[in-house]
This record gives sequence, structure tokens and C-alpha cells, in this order.
Amino acid sequence: PLHSRIGVLPGDGIGPEVTREAVRVLERVAKHADLQLTFTEGMLGGCAIEQTGTPLPAETWELCKNSDALLVGAVGGEKWDSLPAEKNPGLGGLLRLRRELDLFANLRPGLSYLPELSPLRDVNIDILLVREAVGGLYFSPERGRGVQDGVETAWDTMHYTAEQVRRIGIVACRLASERGGRLASVDKANVLESSKLWREVMREVVADFPHLEVEHLYVDNCAMQLVHRPNDFDVIVTENLFGDVLSDEIAGIVGSLGLLPSGSLRTDKFGLYEPVHGAAPDIAGLGKANPSAAILSAAMLLRHSLDRPEDAAVIEQAVTTVLQRGIRTADLANGDIAPVSTSAFGDAVLAEL
Amino acid sequence: PLHSRIGVLPGDGIGPEVTREAVRVLERVAKHADLQLTFTEGMLGGCAIEQTGTPLPAETWELCKNSDALLVGAVGGEKWDSLPAEKNPGLGGLLRLRRELDLFANLRPGLSYLPELSPLRDVNIDILLVREAVGGLYFSPERGRGVQDGVETAWDTMHYTAEQVRRIGIVACRLASERGGRLASVDKANVLESSKLWREVMREVVADFPHLEVEHLYVDNCAMQLVHRPNDFDVIVTENLFGDVLSDEIAGIVGSLGLLPSGSLRTDKFGLYEPVHGAAPDIAGLGKANPSAAILSAAMLLRHSLDRPEDAAVIEQAVTTVLQRGIRTADLANGDIAPVSTSAFGDAVLAEL
Ligand SMILES: CC(C)[C@H](C(=O)O)[C@@H](O)C(=O)O
Ligand SMILES: CC(C)[C@H](C(=O)O)[C@@H](O)C(=O)O
Repeated sequence: PLHSRIGVLPGDGIGPEVTREAVRVLERVAKHADLQLTFTEGMLGGCAIEQTGTPLPAETWELCKNSDALLVGAVGGEKWDSLPAEKNPGLGGLLRLRRELDLFANLRPGLSYLPELSPLRDVNIDILLVREAVGGLYFSPERGRGVQDGVETAWDTMHYTAEQVRRIGIVACRLASERGGRLASVDKANVLESSKLWREVMREVVADFPHLEVEHLYVDNCAMQLVHRPNDFDVIVTENLFGDVLSDEIAGIVGSLGLLPSGSLRTDKFGLYEPVHGAAPDIAGLGKANPSAAILSAAMLLRHSLDRPEDAAVIEQAVTTVLQRGIRTADLANGDIAPVSTSAFGDAVLAEL
Repeated sequence: PLHSRIGVLPGDGIGPEVTREAVRVLERVAKHADLQLTFTEGMLGGCAIEQTGTPLPAETWELCKNSDALLVGAVGGEKWDSLPAEKNPGLGGLLRLRRELDLFANLRPGLSYLPELSPLRDVNIDILLVREAVGGLYFSPERGRGVQDGVETAWDTMHYTAEQVRRIGIVACRLASERGGRLASVDKANVLESSKLWREVMREVVADFPHLEVEHLYVDNCAMQLVHRPNDFDVIVTENLFGDVLSDEIAGIVGSLGLLPSGSLRTDKFGLYEPVHGAAPDIAGLGKANPSAAILSAAMLLRHSLDRPEDAAVIEQAVTTVLQRGIRTADLANGDIAPVSTSAFGDAVLAEL
């Protein structure tokens, strides 16, 4: 059987308990499929700070480099979030990992697993937001703070190269080709130089995918259209900060952070998969956390890093079935439904596989 | 009676026809109130390009400088939108006007005049988004395009001074004090230097308004919360690009661009008022355009530049009544309602005053 090495970084807060369920699901799927998975755990984030003084210790680095894919839980907590960037679980841990592993393609699917959770009427979305994740304002070469001409000033640079745009464009076009065949490229080309470059390069890239239906939208218009006609979108590709904002808007439209997985890829098959939700320290260890996002992240790992789209679909279908049957953790249980625990939800998914 | 000079710049497309209704409403209100208004028309945008070769001719400049407030229709059209920035109706006309007149406080109210238009369930919002409008990525001192180390590159700078943040913060705090007493300041202080400065200065500013209930939100979270709990927001203050995106998201939540006015102010009472919608050349001259946004912009002019909040409220109430009675232009008429013309809508509003 095919052998793949999965690095598991459960992290902080509810990270460990949701990751545990995701690993159980992967183990079960592997057993039934022709797939051999080895799981190796490492430390990332606040827990790593406690034990080693740094959010991303050398052993974790080694583990990442020796893995075919990474499964991450969540990082952060009040105790560490105000630490300076290099020592911070988010910036110094997770963002640094994304950046140094060059995981430039951040995939954020938004799917209406439970349309009734959406604040919108008549919503049934299946959007894949593809966010450029290692460029733009997040990693601007020129940024700073100082007194300029006697005035307290701060600045960041939105910086893109044609090649950075091209590679994310190609990823998005390929994904759109495998899905609904529609692509929305989002920029602010009426105002920004970096967006003018973005649009030019995107026009070149999409020319190689003539079967795609392509639209170029300004980011403000996209923010409006997502509310206005969410069901019309298929793949959306955009730069780092626009992607940060639009993916959270999509999360709001889906209606629950507990259902949102994500993946960060590069051009080879290596990728890092993690729930969109955070560490939620207030409910950590109580068995209340919703493992859906972690389990769905594991499904993305199968689809994008291990070339197992069918196995991924089986997991996604199982999660859908369980949710729709009314088996839900506390975040999604309404008055009528008694919530189940994190592991009971995992059991229910396993039973569906 | 108090005398005020209103510069009227109807612009392109549907600009003239909607502005006409707004002026009629202002004339009627002035007659009943102790208010003397003089209206002087000028050219802005594509129509100015046709007649003078530039979107912002010298006479228009003079008119602006000799006015107490400006009422603008809309600018732009396919014929001119691809012209370079200085010759472009939007960038070279309207944006230049905002910038050179230092209209740093862009007010974008989002109000559920017709909650049934919203794609969201149970929406009843009354949000005032206060957007910093002359700084940030829009007017970055360092921007460009070129080959760096052999690579095609483009960049923009998100640049803010403490003073730029302070003055918009004060405007927002004052407005929140006059309204619901709640303020959300939006930034990306976990990542951007300019946002760290933003948050520091905002903390100082709000300290002088202890009666306000203040929250600081990251822009991604705000994009989600706007969908999740739109009714909770009162005043939102943010930098230029974030404001561009979030105000359009709010527009999507309201459900019709045809109902959204805006105003751009500085610290004296001078301001420029305009509908959020564009020139819509496809329906120009047909009497189909919705003049609500222009009329509501005129109400903002009374409130913010002429210190006439009661007269503004009378207009807003009249528009609400007319809309709720089912008198609507084509954009809002559904199957059951025969649409009225632009001027018939104006007549109906006048009849309510
Ligand atoms: C935690 C933060 C730095 C991060 C980001 O802005 O990318 C988060 O919002 C995300 O979207 O993963
Ligand atoms: C036309 C464009 C330059 C403008 C902007 O981005 O400010 C518009 O979107 C707006 O919000 O008024």
C-alpha cells in the first residue's frame, strides 16, 4: 500500500481534542483503503513555548520536513497572544510555518452543510476561496513605524511579483477546472498598482484555461456580491489580505466556524491542514468542541496531498449525514437537540464511514 | 434666513436625473424652513471631459471652493473609465476632489429602509460606517511598478500618520455620541504596522469619550460579524480600503444600492454628498433611476453641513414612507408593484414633506 507520513501538530486549547477525532477518522479510512499512514506528533504554539521557549521548536521543523502532509489543531491563548511576533503562537508559529514552507495556496472551502445555520435566506453555497498566503501586506519587505518629518507614522507594503500571482492563479484555475468551472479573480485594479499587476497576470493565466468561465471583480464589489448572490460563486482567487477578509465573510455566510476546514499547499503535493476556528481556550478539555472542521481538514488532506478525492468525499459525506441527522456538538445544538461530546461526534462519523 | 451655497455636480449617466429630484426636495424643505439655499451647477466627470478635456475643470474647482456643500450625482461611463488616472472621471474627478478638498471623513450609512430587500433574515440595521478617505493604500506615497532583481513587481504602501487616525477617530466618536453610543474600530493590528498605530491612537481617542461602548475588531472578524450580527453595530470606523470593502458588504446587507447615500466631510462643516451607486449609463435618461440615494444624500447635507438634523429627518421619514407604501422605481418594484418614474418618485417624496 501507499505509505504517507502525516505530521500531527495538535497545538493549544481545543486543538488536541479535535485533532484526535480527525486522526481517528484518517486511521479508519486508511484501513479500508489501500493506504498506509504513519502519524507523528509534534509541538506547535503555546504548548511549545511552555516546554521549549519557542512556538516552533527545531524538532517540529524536522518533523514538518519529514512529512508528506501536516494536520494542525489550533494555536494560541491569552497567555501568549501578546508576545512579540517571533515568540507568538500565531505569527511566530503558524504564520511562520506557512511562510517558511512556502505554503502559498491557502484553500478555504465554504459549504452549506447546514443551510439553516446561515443568517442568509436561501443559501446553498459551495465556494472554494483560494487565498495567496505568503505575499502582500502580510509579509511586506518595507514596513515600519517611526517619526517622519516630525510626525508619528506607520506603514506596510502590499508587494507582489508577477510570479507570485501566476502560481496562485494556476492553482485556482486547476481547482476550478476540477469543480464547477467558474472562477472569480478579486482585486482592486481600479486603484492599486499591485492589483493592476494581479489582473494582468490573471488574464494571462486564465487564457490557458479557455473552458473556465471567468470574472474579474473588485474586492468591494465581491464583498457585496457574496451577500447578494452567494450561490453563484465557485472558486474565488485573491491576494492575502482580501482573502483574509472575504473568507471570514464566507464563514459568516456558512454560519458556523465549527464547520470550516482549510488547507495550505504549495506546487508539490505537500500541505498543511487545519480548522479555521481558533484554540477556544474557554472550552478546552471539556469535550465540548466541534471536531467537524478538523475532520473536514483531514478530508482535504486526503484530497489535495494524497490524491484521494474519493476517500475525502466519503468523510465529507459522513460528516454531512451526521450533522443533518441532528447529532451535534454544543455550538450547533439548538434548544431541541441535546449536544453530544467531541468524541461522541467522532464516533458517529466513524460509524458512517 | 440662513444662506448657504450648494454646488451641484450632476455628472454622468443617471447623475443628472437623480440629482434633479434631490434639488427639488432641498428647495421644498428650504421654503418651509428658515433656510435660503442657492444652487449653482458645475461639470464633473465624463461630461466635463467631453466639453473641456478634463474631468475636473477649473470652473468646477472655483465653484467647489465657493460653496458651503456639494451635491454630486454620479460620474463615469465606458467611454472614459479606461482613461489614465488624471483623465478618469472616477480617479481624476471624484477621488481627486475628495483628496484635494481633504474630505477625510467618508460617512456611509446603511439603514434597513426595506428589510425585505435584505438577503439576510431578521435584519434591521442602522449602521454608520465612517471611512478614512484620503489616506492608506489609496494615496500611498510609495507605489509603483517595475522590475526588481529581474522580476516584474508592483507595490503600494498603506501609510498612516497618528494625526490622520486621530482626526477620523474624533469624527467617529462624536457621531457615535450623537447616535447609539456604540463604536467599533476596525483594523488588522495583529499583522499590520499601520493597524497597530491605528489601534493605539484609537485607544487614546476613545478615552476622551468614556460614555461610548467601544470594541476593537480585526477586519476579517468584522466582515464575519456583519453577516452574523448586523443589528448590533452602530458606528464603525476604519481605514480607507477596509472601509471600501466593509461598506459594500453593508450595502449588500441592506439589499439595494439604490437606497444608499454618502457624505464626505472635513473638520469644518464643508462636505460633498453623493449616492453610493454609480452612473448606470444603461438606464440613463430613461426616467427609470431610483432617486432615493440622491435624496437621502441631500438629507445628509442638511444634517452634517447645514446643522439641520430635524429637516434631514423629515426627508428621511418621507422617503421611508413612500417606499413602504409601495411607491418604487423599477429597481425595487417586484412583480406586484408597477414601477414609478424617477420624477414620480420625487413627486411622492415632495408630497410627504
Ligand atoms: C491569526 C491571523 C494572523 C490569521 C490571518 O490574518 O491570516 C487569521 O485571521 C487567518 O485568516 O488565518
Ligand atoms: C470607484 C472607486 C475608486 C471607489 C473607491 O474604491 O473608493 C468606490 O469603490 C467607492 O467606494 O467610492
